Amino acid sequence: MEWVGVPPPQAREGSIKSKYTSLPHTDVYFWECKKLKLFRFGRDGSEGELSFLCFGLVQGQTPLFPRIFGHEAAGIVESIGEGVTDVKPGDHVLPIFTGECKECSHCKSEESNMCDLLRINTDRGVMLNDGKSRFSIKGKPINHFLGTSTFSEYTVVHVGCLAKINPAAPLDKVCVVSCGISTGLGATLNVAKPKKGSIVAVFGLGAVGLAACEGARIAGASRIIGVDLNPNRFKDAKKFGVTDFVNPKDHQKPVQEVIAEMTNGGVDRAVECTGNINAMISAFECVHDGWGVAVLVGVPHQDAIFMSKPINFLNERTLKGTFFGNYKPRTDIPNVVEMYMKKELELEKFLTHRVKFSEINKAFDLMLKGEGLRCIITMED
Amino acid sequence: MEWVGVPPPQAREGSIKSKYTSLPHTDVYFWECKKLKLFRFGRDGSEGELSFLCFGLVQGQTPLFPRIFGHEAAGIVESIGEGVTDVKPGDHVLPIFTGECKECSHCKSEESNMCDLLRINTDRGVMLNDGKSRFSIKGKPINHFLGTSTFSEYTVVHVGCLAKINPAAPLDKVCVVSCGISTGLGATLNVAKPKKGSIVAVFGLGAVGLAACEGARIAGASRIIGVDLNPNRFKDAKKFGVTDFVNPKDHQKPVQEVIAEMTNGGVDRAVECTGNINAMISAFECVHDGWGVAVLVGVPHQDAIFMSKPINFLNERTLKGTFFGNYKPRTDIPNVVEMYMKKELELEKFLTHRVKFSEINKAFDLMLKGEGLRCIITMED
Ligand SMILES: NC(=O)c1ccc[n+]([C@@H]2O[C@H](COP(=O)([O-])OP(=O)(O)OC[C@H]3O[C@@H](n4cnc5c(N)ncnc54)[C@H](O)[C@@H]3O)[C@@H](O)[C@H]2O)c1
Ligand SMILES: NC(=O)c1ccc[n+]([C@@H]2O[C@H](COP(=O)([O-])OP(=O)(O)OC[C@H]3O[C@@H](n4cnc5c(N)ncnc54)[C@H](O)[C@@H]3O)[C@@H](O)[C@H]2O)c1
Ligand SMILES: [Zn+2]
Ligand SMILES: [Zn+2]
Ligand SMILES: [Zn+2]
Ligand SMILES: [Zn+2]
Repeated sequence: MEWVGVPPPQAREGSIKSKYTSLPHTDVYFWECKKLKLFRFGRDGSEGELSFLCFGLVQGQTPLFPRIFGHEAAGIVESIGEGVTDVKPGDHVLPIFTGECKECSHCKSEESNMCDLLRINTDRGVMLNDGKSRFSIKGKPINHFLGTSTFSEYTVVHVGCLAKINPAAPLDKVCVVSCGISTGLGATLNVAKPKKGSIVAVFGLGAVGLAACEGARIAGASRIIGVDLNPNRFKDAKKFGVTDFVNPKDHQKPVQEVIAEMTNGGVDRAVECTGNINAMISAFECVHDGWGVAVLVGVPHQDAIFMSKPINFLNERTLKGTFFGNYKPRTDIPNVVEMYMKKELELEKFLTHRVKFSEINKAFDLMLKGEGLRCIITMED
Repeated sequence: MEWVGVPPPQAREGSIKSKYTSLPHTDVYFWECKKLKLFRFGRDGSEGELSFLCFGLVQGQTPLFPRIFGHEAAGIVESIGEGVTDVKPGDHVLPIFTGECKECSHCKSEESNMCDLLRINTDRGVMLNDGKSRFSIKGKPINHFLGTSTFSEYTVVHVGCLAKINPAAPLDKVCVVSCGISTGLGATLNVAKPKKGSIVAVFGLGAVGLAACEGARIAGASRIIGVDLNPNRFKDAKKFGVTDFVNPKDHQKPVQEVIAEMTNGGVDRAVECTGNINAMISAFECVHDGWGVAVLVGVPHQDAIFMSKPINFLNERTLKGTFFGNYKPRTDIPNVVEMYMKKELELEKFLTHRVKFSEINKAFDLMLKGEGLRCIITMED
């Protein structure tokens, strides 16, 4: 137990009191040392509220150790810095790992959510305003993670990364909207855009893939084909409307051929949520000629190369990639929360575990064992 | 000079009197023997109107020699077979190398033009109805080409491959709408769909690429970047609204990087009309992240493999392919003719040469030398 200080927010920043955070795989990948420490947390180093910091090395990237992880959360604005007009203390917000400045060419484009200023940056451990961290232990700075660092009772976030949501929304549920769930949901609803009655294939049935299935269910797909190498994933998938299961390991021929045979030539839409290059190629090649659209979501190994014969494109197939389901964090994410409020989006299916802040190691263990989809961590003890 | 017979059309077929035909590169590629013969043509082997047949071997494919080539033409329906209700004798038509049955899943889809029944088939030399040819010389059958065989004064075409057009349209101009020009035009207008003010790159400035440029001009592109290895192509291109020229040979770095630098990160749309795999990859990689769309048109070598890093997709780029500019032959091609009638589409720019039927070897020579865009051949002597 040590003392950590968080100074007040600066220009264009908000200080957020995290109420609930959840643990997606991404944080587990980034967290390497496997030693989690709990720290006492206080605004100025004095004894304050209990908080949690997870220190780790960033795998294969600039080591930014020590660092506060966490990027799926919901909280309440505590104070705001200079020039902040879009949120005020007391507002309910989701801090998002990628932002929306509303001024760059991407923010002004109807199609893009890849803000030039606030686009995801795993290599930055500091705030944009002054290139410094807002966290410290005994005067030594502690790095931020994805601009969110939600494994901390108080955090400081750029206002361009704060989605102001309906205050009636239950924070212990909508916290999961801030990353993987929206990524999969938007990949289907915003990018693949299946028509009612379509056949949709989803590769990878982790939380992101199941959110893609949820999007297909909401869009009125007539059949949802789930593809995963892990047969244990199939049980959960039924709850998400998956009608057919395909395990590539059960077949001699390439899975795209298996799917084409099952569907009279191919699916209408495919969404790839594995990060595996072979799954990306199969997802593209399993869509129907003439109208099929495949969408890549998973983050691949950096040496991976997508390969396919040009004739697969010329036969009128489309391949797209998406980042964060093409949602603009501030403009669109409040509407995803509204989808939940209107009972269109069923978030409860994703919330498989719940732990107290002080038991965060349990949540990491569950994730490392591949159990469950999302574990909600209650920040208040 | 020999005698050729053409029996009357059978069910779902129409006999067409070709008035004008044009010579696209495709026919030159398919024509190998380089010996062109003129034949006397008569319905039943008796002396009739003078006509022309071009015999050749199909390169690298099933030899269907002897064969009547020609697939860009305009004509008039002479007689119709049983069950034909959509056209009647006297109608002005464009015979199209790919058809529209209006009954299969592709024809019923709003998006596809790849009819299951009448999709292009370079390996078929016979009519669908009875698996036989309608042409013969002294009783020996002569094969059809692409279901059109327009290098003949009379030809027989499946009614699903006949686009009935405005009878006021000049046949000696709109004949070129039946293949390459529509392919390039539709690739831009129907598939790339640039918004007004967009920056569009076109790879390959042959007739197909220049038609893609024409589409960009019609769509109101603010800049059209033409890319070709052949500097001679740049002269013509200006007439088609091309504002910037890039010859990949003039640069050390990959052309996609050159274009990204010229355009502050990439073009809004790219259309590839070369058939070269490197150009396909460059066309995809030169579009802007967030919203860029690249469209493949060119027919590649059959061993070519498209390769790119998945991150290029994940950064919200789209890659599509198109066949015949996504136009449905019977539903949409009459509207392309209307675009010409309304002076939106400027066909005259493509019509660089004109020869009489008996001088067809001149047209072949021009094409083989790479001179001009389209040579119109007048069928009546
Ligand atoms: N979790 C997030 O917040 C988030 C956000 C955006 C993007 N992503 C990316 O989306 C992808 C999926 O994320 P997740 O959290 O659901 O991961 P996950 O590990 O829970 O699920 C991935 C699933 O894909 C399956 N899989 C792997 N290779 C396969 C193959 N060749 N064929 C079929 N199935 C295969 C695995 O068995 C696993 O069930 C990852 O690449 C991740 O980086 C994740
Ligand atoms: N002509 C048709 O009716 C038709 C119809 C549909 C599709 N196609 C296909 O479209 C493509 C273009 O047809 P076209 O008739 O305009 O052909 P073309 O040969 O007249 O033009 C192709 C152009 O591409 C250029 N080129 C080749 N490699 C290049 C590279 N790496 N980078 C830049 N430029 C390069 C060539 O110099 C040439 O000017 C072909 O692949 C053809 O098969 C043609
Ligand atoms: Zn921005
Ligand atoms: Zn995440
Ligand atoms: Zn059809
Ligand atoms: Zn052609």
